[in-house]
Amino acid sequence: MKSHTRYLTFEVPARMDFVNITGTVADEVNKSGVQEGLCLVNAMHITASVFINDDEPGLHADYKRWLEKLAPFSASPDVYHHNRTGEDNGDAHHKRQVMGREVVVAITEGRLDFGPWEQIFYGEFDGGRRKRVLVKLIGD
Amino acid sequence: MKSHTRYLTFEVPARMDFVNITGTVADEVNKSGVQEGLCLVNAMHITASVFINDDEPGLHADYKRWLEKLAPFSASPDVYHHNRTGEDNGDAHHKRQVMGREVVVAITEGRLDFGPWEQIFYGEFDGGRRKRVLVKLIGD
Amino acid sequence: MKSHTRYLTFEVPARMDFVNITGTVADEVNKSGVQEGLCLVNAMHITASVFINDDEPGLHADYKRWLEKLAPFSASPDVYHHNRTGEDNGDAHHKRQVMGREVVVAITEGRLDFGPWEQIFYGEFDGGRRKRVLVKLIGD
Repeated sequence: MKSHTRYLTFEVPARMDFVNITGTVADEVNKSGVQEGLCLVNAMHITASVFINDDEPGLHADYKRWLEKLAPFSASPDVYHHNRTGEDNGDAHHKRQVMGREVVVAITEGRLDFGPWEQIFYGEFDGGRRKRVLVKLIGD
Repeated sequence: MKSHTRYLTFEVPARMDFVNITGTVADEVNKSGVQEGLCLVNAMHITASVFINDDEPGLHADYKRWLEKLAPFSASPDVYHHNRTGEDNGDAHHKRQVMGREVVVAITEGRLDFGPWEQIFYGEFDGGRRKRVLVKLIGD
Repeated sequence: MKSHTRYLTFEVPARMDFVNITGTVADEVNKSGVQEGLCLVNAMHITASVFINDDEPGLHADYKRWLEKLAPFSASPDVYHHNRTGEDNGDAHHKRQVMGREVVVAITEGRLDFGPWEQIFYGEFDGGRRKRVLVKLIGD
């Protein structure tokens, strides 16, 4: 069994934004030499997500408005008790749960086994900090 | 290490509906010959989900009402900017995020290692189109 | 390829609560002898979750209020048709979908490959019952 590990680093200027990382992950699949296996891609920080959806700017604007409605930003420690710690990112911990921490993608014949529109995104909900994403492949 | 890949095809008539695919996935586990490993099942389309929950019609009706409340259908490009592309499925991309893209299931002694009520569902949020689900097994 | 399977049992007194299981999962990683691989941790019951986030009591209080707002408890079979079965846990099946069923964690150099704040939680949404969590490792 082969394995391959890579840490990607991001520093997203906006508080909330989505970065297409499909090409970077595909490069790691190539480097791994894995032909048949599984590829895990996960945020290593708990106010960020990795998710798969469409690379369409209108949809990304929709997601941002929707997440802001489901878990609005507030720095107040009365709105988010988490902010009593001195942080102001209580909302980001909620947005991340909706969008998810990780994706697992099949590797078939040496490639990400994707449907026609699947693209992998890093989702940032508390930007302006350096954060990491883990890419881990196992297989033959 | 063994691996096994299968593509399932669905064309669900209703806009939103859930299809129990547990038996089909279990058949693929049998065919794979994997005794100890992992089984990934994921929607290959970004307006559909694969999730695990109860096969109970009342619950499925509840999920449909709830998802419609969290991300209501609207064809308007003002409500979902995604619909400016000519699509009317902005809501479906949101419903899919709540229910998730994929499940990973343990294979133990050649079987899906499930609790008493776990069942795997294909979740369709923009029906009337042919879509695929990927089943990928790796293990020994 | 090595594999390792362990079933954890919980009986959480509160209806909704979160239990940090990171140490228990790390012990299983050690016992497995896996140096490079993947670790699946999933709830085996459909009114419970396994998720990764911060071990911070304020955040956990926030999550509980938020989930109660997104999917409020009601024993009424009119509010949740699922409760027509005689259960009163319709809400719990919804809360579990928001928080997720499972996590997949990379194993690198024999350890859970985690960012600085990542902790694994069992999330209970219909407590007072014995329930199980599955830990499955595969790798070399």
